[in-house]
Amino acid sequence: MTAMATAGKASSLGVLESLATLGLVLPGPPVAVAAYEPWQRMGNIITTSFQLPWVDGKLACVGRLGESVSIEEGVAAARICALNGMAQLQQAAGDLNHVRIVRVEGHVGCVEGFDAMPVVLNGASELLNAAFGERGRHARTAQGHQVMPLNVPVMLGFWAEVIP
Amino acid sequence: MTAMATAGKASSLGVLESLATLGLVLPGPPVAVAAYEPWQRMGNIITTSFQLPWVDGKLACVGRLGESVSIEEGVAAARICALNGMAQLQQAAGDLNHVRIVRVEGHVGCVEGFDAMPVVLNGASELLNAAFGERGRHARTAQGHQVMPLNVPVMLGFWAEVIP
Amino acid sequence: MTAMATAGKASSLGVLESLATLGLVLPGPPVAVAAYEPWQRMGNIITTSFQLPWVDGKLACVGRLGESVSIEEGVAAARICALNGMAQLQQAAGDLNHVRIVRVEGHVGCVEGFDAMPVVLNGASELLNAAFGERGRHARTAQGHQVMPLNVPVMLGFWAEVIP
Repeated sequence: MTAMATAGKASSLGVLESLATLGLVLPGPPVAVAAYEPWQRMGNIITTSFQLPWVDGKLACVGRLGESVSIEEGVAAARICALNGMAQLQQAAGDLNHVRIVRVEGHVGCVEGFDAMPVVLNGASELLNAAFGERGRHARTAQGHQVMPLNVPVMLGFWAEVIP
Repeated sequence: MTAMATAGKASSLGVLESLATLGLVLPGPPVAVAAYEPWQRMGNIITTSFQLPWVDGKLACVGRLGESVSIEEGVAAARICALNGMAQLQQAAGDLNHVRIVRVEGHVGCVEGFDAMPVVLNGASELLNAAFGERGRHARTAQGHQVMPLNVPVMLGFWAEVIP
Repeated sequence: MTAMATAGKASSLGVLESLATLGLVLPGPPVAVAAYEPWQRMGNIITTSFQLPWVDGKLACVGRLGESVSIEEGVAAARICALNGMAQLQQAAGDLNHVRIVRVEGHVGCVEGFDAMPVVLNGASELLNAAFGERGRHARTAQGHQVMPLNVPVMLGFWAEVIP
């Protein structure tokens, strides 16, 4: 292991250790499903493509809230999307301990009449707060959709800042 | 009152006075309804969470355009969301006279077949233009949704820049 | 023609020539349909309002995917939206050869059950990749909506960076 890799690993312990205390391991970053990139940087600003609830190349959950997907399953899907987002941010920044979460864009697939998007998305927000501490405090947007790409129940976009 | 507070107040008169001429007063910034923050800054860039039509802790309007909410009521709700956004931007920047509105993300709750989102959102855009003048000229995005968080008819996200 | 205009034209040949090889010409930038601006800049960052499939002041396509609009027509509409976005970015940056595409926000109007938004939006992404090369590699977000402003089948928002 090179000195650079060691240094990177050491300085990453904060966020990754926080995940470990929750019984979670950072996954590999999912690949984009079409002709685009998973993230881009503009100076210190990172923006990601929408993160879907992929686990090992398969969608962990499909369907809509208020129909075939329960609140608990939606919360779990939101956590998976958040983990995948963290994986992208690590790729973009090189080290999650130098990442500050700025904005999470939350999208919930649901039936007409469903209005508890904030409850579902708290699955992501609470995980980010637990993993990043003060650097995880983010603005958030919440939308509901009766149609979602690949029929996923949740997807998340991220804006983050690389900090010293 | 400290000199800094006095200076801040004096330099805020522009936007707040413009609101006053319209019979409007800047409300207090609404609190977030879940595990997130109402705004974040990256250097001079501010992004907000979606602003709902809260007035004194209650939603001024619920329902959908093309059904129980008229165009006039939608326009009024958009204005309230814009005022709440200004309140957040003042918190984030310290002084609205040093804020430039860059992008307004507009979301309208509506029934199938409704396509007049731009008319509804003009309620917000025209208020921002009146209050901020040249600094209020913004890009805008407009979306329609048959399902909205808390069943609101309008919600708005803001991107703004802090300028000298 | 002034020296400045000549220089601008010369340095724009890259992107415009790439379009020409595809048989495409950059259109004039569509005007905003309401009380907002087509784009704004914050330093080197450009954000655009949503671009609709306008051609010469008329919508090239209306309707929804999965209903009256075929995948092929949706892909064609996405290409038109991308061309209109390029026209806005040229206005904002002065020269498309100094523009890097960062994020494309894709919105598809469709019926319940449709989930092939990524296929439709590839019409835009592949054109951007062809026209900009390495500088066209972008993050992308994909949403589906049963209701769209002016009943368009596709609309796109852009984030881009002005680079040396």
